Amino acid sequence: MIGLRHELSVAGLKVARVTGLVSATTIDELSVEEPLEIRIVDGANGRPKPVSVAVTMRTPGDDVDLATGFLYTEGIITARSDLDDLEIETPNIVTAVLRRATFVNSSSLDRHSFVSSSCGVCGKRSIAAVTVTRRHRIEPAVPQINPRIIHTLPDALRTDQPGFARTGGLHAAALFDVEGQLIALREDVGRHNALDKLIGAELRADRVPLAGRVVFVSGRLSFELVQKAAIAGAPMLVAVGAPSSLAVELARESGMTMLGFVRDGRFNVYSDFGRLRVANPVIGKTA
Amino acid sequence: MIGLRHELSVAGLKVARVTGLVSATTIDELSVEEPLEIRIVDGANGRPKPVSVAVTMRTPGDDVDLATGFLYTEGIITARSDLDDLEIETPNIVTAVLRRATFVNSSSLDRHSFVSSSCGVCGKRSIAAVTVTRRHRIEPAVPQINPRIIHTLPDALRTDQPGFARTGGLHAAALFDVEGQLIALREDVGRHNALDKLIGAELRADRVPLAGRVVFVSGRLSFELVQKAAIAGAPMLVAVGAPSSLAVELARESGMTMLGFVRDGRFNVYSDFGRLRVANPVIGKTA
Repeated sequence: MIGLRHELSVAGLKVARVTGLVSATTIDELSVEEPLEIRIVDGANGRPKPVSVAVTMRTPGDDVDLATGFLYTEGIITARSDLDDLEIETPNIVTAVLRRATFVNSSSLDRHSFVSSSCGVCGKRSIAAVTVTRRHRIEPAVPQINPRIIHTLPDALRTDQPGFARTGGLHAAALFDVEGQLIALREDVGRHNALDKLIGAELRADRVPLAGRVVFVSGRLSFELVQKAAIAGAPMLVAVGAPSSLAVELARESGMTMLGFVRDGRFNVYSDFGRLRVANPVIGKTA
Repeated sequence: MIGLRHELSVAGLKVARVTGLVSATTIDELSVEEPLEIRIVDGANGRPKPVSVAVTMRTPGDDVDLATGFLYTEGIITARSDLDDLEIETPNIVTAVLRRATFVNSSSLDRHSFVSSSCGVCGKRSIAAVTVTRRHRIEPAVPQINPRIIHTLPDALRTDQPGFARTGGLHAAALFDVEGQLIALREDVGRHNALDKLIGAELRADRVPLAGRVVFVSGRLSFELVQKAAIAGAPMLVAVGAPSSLAVELARESGMTMLGFVRDGRFNVYSDFGRLRVANPVIGKTA
């Protein structure tokens, strides 16, 4: 472990700052990155050997949320009740105790695919998989949201994202209601982890599917993030950055409203205009 | 496949742009994201069934560079000569034909770990692995570089990174010499893929180890990127964004100079000041 000071998610470090040709020492704050191994075990069978389903590089903190969200968005569990317990074995290993049927179904699957999709890989197989494992139909045209609210989200996120302001290295995933009130926020060095933490926290609070809510992320939108949001039944996925082609494709297939480049009072609508109350909806129908 | 026009790496798409409460149609350019499956096969054994080692979500283009770089930075091949051929089976599947000994060694390994480390996961195992598989000792205090050159790199990258300017969604990895001349540049939706493409291109040109060169990336520095750069023998890794704690730790262990937040005539030195020619080197020694 490096650094002068060390908190859970931020590490202070003495570095040299070069300005022009002159150097001086300064204290820099880094986002902490550490591996987390997620294991599953059969809760009803005298605790046989756990099965490792993934190792992810994450920022420590909210590890129970992260593991819960990961198991859910990867389709290993399909409800909070599939999870009997979640035990922190060491700071970098968590073991999920699953209901017997859930464990048997999960452990027989190809582990390769779990790790793959956690990293957004294997698009074609994952597009098929999301159709199979998605538990929540996204209801059309609900919620209705005023674009004025969307324009407020970047500032609202910035106000409540302490880690990014300090380190410049943490992604955020946040949940807002249609009035723009922040419901939950999670940060991580990995975008997929930030979203898994958010979804895991909502699942633990029995608030999944995310109907009526807006999921807002600080960065770009990859296929993987859309897949996770779709599995959690999110009707609106909104980003400060750009989406990829496959992200838009999956949002359209899922009936999810996707907005990108939300900044300076503007945004782009990549899919499903029907949830936005704009002044000129006829033109709006083109997206 | 979505979009009006479609090139290899950029897709044009009609979207709605909302400004305030008013929407209008516009054309947006998206970075393309598609899965690439990388397989290996024994070139000396009558071509038995290929073994799939990874599926990565990447931007199409430079797929041979990507597959070559991936196989090298994951330690599946350790030299260009381990690779007899690289065949594009379909637009999203490449098969690497390996020398017999290389194939036998690789296919007996746990596939899980390949995919894991491609996504930067499994830090502790990977820190050990990079020590085992690193082929190139990084020579201390070489090259020597003037900070003036470092300050020019962001503009040089921006000039030569067409994909980012168009889509806002592509990461870049570039190789510069100590005079700041651009040697090679690759782009991708995934940071690790952009770096694998760059390293793969250099390996194919017999220019690995990357001694005497500066690797420059457009985003943040995770453990995974440092690991790939270290395996390719890069003495200097420079980023526009912030490093994580584990990225700094590995750079220090590897004897690699790591610079971050390179912008507006300033940068931070996170490890090994010895390669920088600054006006006041005594203060500089603190990093």
